[in-house]
Amino acid sequence: MTPLFARMTVAGVGLIGGSLALAARAAGLVGEVVGYGRSEANLRLARERGLVDRVAREPAAAVAGADLIVLAAPVGASTALAEAFRPHAHPGAILTDVGSVKGGLVEALEGRWPDGRRVVGAHPIAGTESSGAGAAREDLFRGRRCIVTPTDATDRDALGRVRALWEGVGAVVEEMPAALHDEILARVSHLPHLAAYALVSASGEMQIGGRRVLDYAGSGYRDTTRIAASRPELWRDIALANRAALRGALAEFRSVLDRLEHLLATGDADGLSAELAAAAALRQRLGGER
Amino acid sequence: MTPLFARMTVAGVGLIGGSLALAARAAGLVGEVVGYGRSEANLRLARERGLVDRVAREPAAAVAGADLIVLAAPVGASTALAEAFRPHAHPGAILTDVGSVKGGLVEALEGRWPDGRRVVGAHPIAGTESSGAGAAREDLFRGRRCIVTPTDATDRDALGRVRALWEGVGAVVEEMPAALHDEILARVSHLPHLAAYALVSASGEMQIGGRRVLDYAGSGYRDTTRIAASRPELWRDIALANRAALRGALAEFRSVLDRLEHLLATGDADGLSAELAAAAALRQRLGGER
Repeated sequence: MTPLFARMTVAGVGLIGGSLALAARAAGLVGEVVGYGRSEANLRLARERGLVDRVAREPAAAVAGADLIVLAAPVGASTALAEAFRPHAHPGAILTDVGSVKGGLVEALEGRWPDGRRVVGAHPIAGTESSGAGAAREDLFRGRRCIVTPTDATDRDALGRVRALWEGVGAVVEEMPAALHDEILARVSHLPHLAAYALVSASGEMQIGGRRVLDYAGSGYRDTTRIAASRPELWRDIALANRAALRGALAEFRSVLDRLEHLLATGDADGLSAELAAAAALRQRLGGER
Repeated sequence: MTPLFARMTVAGVGLIGGSLALAARAAGLVGEVVGYGRSEANLRLARERGLVDRVAREPAAAVAGADLIVLAAPVGASTALAEAFRPHAHPGAILTDVGSVKGGLVEALEGRWPDGRRVVGAHPIAGTESSGAGAAREDLFRGRRCIVTPTDATDRDALGRVRALWEGVGAVVEEMPAALHDEILARVSHLPHLAAYALVSASGEMQIGGRRVLDYAGSGYRDTTRIAASRPELWRDIALANRAALRGALAEFRSVLDRLEHLLATGDADGLSAELAAAAALRQRLGGER
């Protein structure tokens, strides 16, 4: 059977890129996978773990003959990567990404690709606080959503093939406009990251009565702040790239905190009950999936 | 060998009380465990799971002959329980609790006990978002901290025996003043709970572009909000009982969020980097313990 793509280049063989490479190879969706990245140690690990068939450290060698190029580096590096690959890419090559922000990014990539219609924005909603080729897992996308954000310009064939790739590695693919994606992800991902970082900042180095506060953290604290261990430069880029939506989500969150502060200040037990019970009911419905 | 306590009454055979009962029995620290509670179904489950030797639904029967009475019901119910038990308790009986707030509570219990010197406040830092006798586990306290908060009045023998109970079930016992406990726990437990509830409140029922936002929640959102599935009445009571310290912690958290909002508003990439990197380094040092 002919694979979906003869040669896939993955730029950034970390948790997401590496897992996609591994899963696509395992599912026979790709003829060959070339890993590209800046860290020699990470590329070596990717090679050793069999995530990719071979690695390249120069853009020309990385994308030569590729019919699919996946940008899986941090969001802030994507446009520069597209520019570096452009002169060496096959004219018909499809460019896709896995970034957590889609709005300005997909447009920027369209403008930087030989055929802008062959750019397909995608975002698999999967991940952990771990990173690097060592964290890649073949089953990372199984049963997870992958949002693709075609524009009016997007070529239907390119879109269909990128969809098929994600479906082939087990994801549930859904299309929506980039702006809608960014508004939603600001609430369910970008804001929670910001809140987790802020919780740690607020008391992470605090001492009270000669005791280091963080020494008393239990499993609740660990859960709530786990994603604050994520790579900070990654989340700085995401936060800035999705600044408008994130500021909206942050304002909503701060207004809930204002309400809670008021309930505490007035000792309003009934009001506090109602507020917490509504949140608990919603959260219980969501389930744990630990 | 004579057990540490001939008869231990556990009022509230849920996650904490049930786990303590189970672990104390398994370690041979108690001759007999009597479970007391309001829910007949939960008591039946406690009995079936072997957490307790027998159950009682009347205060007199519950504490008759007990040399240790453990209040393991929600914080808001503790003083009323002490009052209900008082007329039936042995004059030398030790009263202890497992509440997440110690300040006003320990004082209140001292005033409500035949011999206030035999009241010992305790708080094992262990737990999950689950509750009830079905969630009890023998190893819940192993390697976890248990903070005990003796006052100037506390009898040394009573303190030593409560300490020995917690050490016997594997906890690492530490003494500190109640007020210090409350300031610390406000930061590492009470505020994270409030923040988790607030995150869910902020977008839990939101729809954008006809899509339910929560349908796009990934593992990061689930981790960060997991404790928002905790029993709301429990956390309402804790929040109100520790109102002053919690409002202080909330103010610190809100000021970090103000700073983040300013960094986003001004697009200050370096400032945002520094803020997130400092938090990530602290959180990485804490570790996961998943």
